[in-house]
Amino acid sequence: MTSTTSAGQERKAPGRPRSAQADEAILDAVLALMAEGQSAAAVSIESVAAKAGVGKATIYRRWPNKEALLIDAVRCMKGPLPALGGVSAREDLIALVTANRSNRAREYGIVTACLLPELQRDPELNRMHQAVMEPRRERMREILRRGVETGEFRADLDIHLTVLMLSGPSMMLGMFGDATGVPEQDFPEKLVDALLRGASA
Amino acid sequence: MTSTTSAGQERKAPGRPRSAQADEAILDAVLALMAEGQSAAAVSIESVAAKAGVGKATIYRRWPNKEALLIDAVRCMKGPLPALGGVSAREDLIALVTANRSNRAREYGIVTACLLPELQRDPELNRMHQAVMEPRRERMREILRRGVETGEFRADLDIHLTVLMLSGPSMMLGMFGDATGVPEQDFPEKLVDALLRGASA
Repeated sequence: MTSTTSAGQERKAPGRPRSAQADEAILDAVLALMAEGQSAAAVSIESVAAKAGVGKATIYRRWPNKEALLIDAVRCMKGPLPALGGVSAREDLIALVTANRSNRAREYGIVTACLLPELQRDPELNRMHQAVMEPRRERMREILRRGVETGEFRADLDIHLTVLMLSGPSMMLGMFGDATGVPEQDFPEKLVDALLRGASA
Repeated sequence: MTSTTSAGQERKAPGRPRSAQADEAILDAVLALMAEGQSAAAVSIESVAAKAGVGKATIYRRWPNKEALLIDAVRCMKGPLPALGGVSAREDLIALVTANRSNRAREYGIVTACLLPELQRDPELNRMHQAVMEPRRERMREILRRGVETGEFRADLDIHLTVLMLSGPSMMLGMFGDATGVPEQDFPEKLVDALLRGASA
């Protein structure tokens, strides 16, 4: 299915050379428009084409509709899932939190939040968004369950709550940056270790 | 300063009866427009007036400009800071997390995120937003510092990181709800206790 193929992968477009450069310009344009404060509803194929400096046909050759394009833009901000070392659950969690923090973390929080009303209105868009998010959540749950099995984590660990405790601070730091008082430097390691150690004396 | 007075408080408007009902309809209209996916830039005094069923003059009597109105809407979603019992830092944290979770938690995440591009563009709006957020962050920091002093929390607690670990999951649960797999029921208590205990075996 071409609509959910990320920009970095080969697309089947017989007879047409794929242009990674155009893909990137188009996805950058989507993110720029949404990070400027345009709602998902307000972003149009026309405005994306104008911003990216390409024709509308170039966009429609790659994505069947606006919704597929928006979700692909969210996916690109997230980047690929990392290969996990498996040495310890702690190290795998740090690797995954690091991978989820793209250099577009701020845009990611804004774009995702501004997509939410659209996701609620449009079940197909919501399904596509879940298809992007769910593998990352499941990867994190897998690491946590393995850590419980090996005895690295407590046996009564609340898996879903812990996923939220790893992803929520990360999203908020991306959105508010310096105002949080938390430096980006070594954030994934500090977060994971704070979560493991606990705040109690 | 009338512009930052929340809807529930008295305003100085000599000779004019204050109408809490109109205030509420206006603030509800702002939230509804933004939660529908309108960016802060796209929301206008005109669109708010139309949605609230009041005249533009009614809005301008209460708020000097659109920015003051948007910030007031964010403040109203947060509700008042709770009185803290002070029995334990744990109980005070639970009370504060509970108070920060209004029944408009979902709208709050969306509206705040969609405000971010505006905040970056407009220093005065950013200052007003900080004036809403900072007392809540500071209240949480106070509780954490007191917990460190009394020996309830570990001596080397990272205060800023811990604030992020309490507010980030809360914001994300508000935005994504059921998709997180985390029930709303008893969330503040579960979050605080998970943070205190730690995930390590």
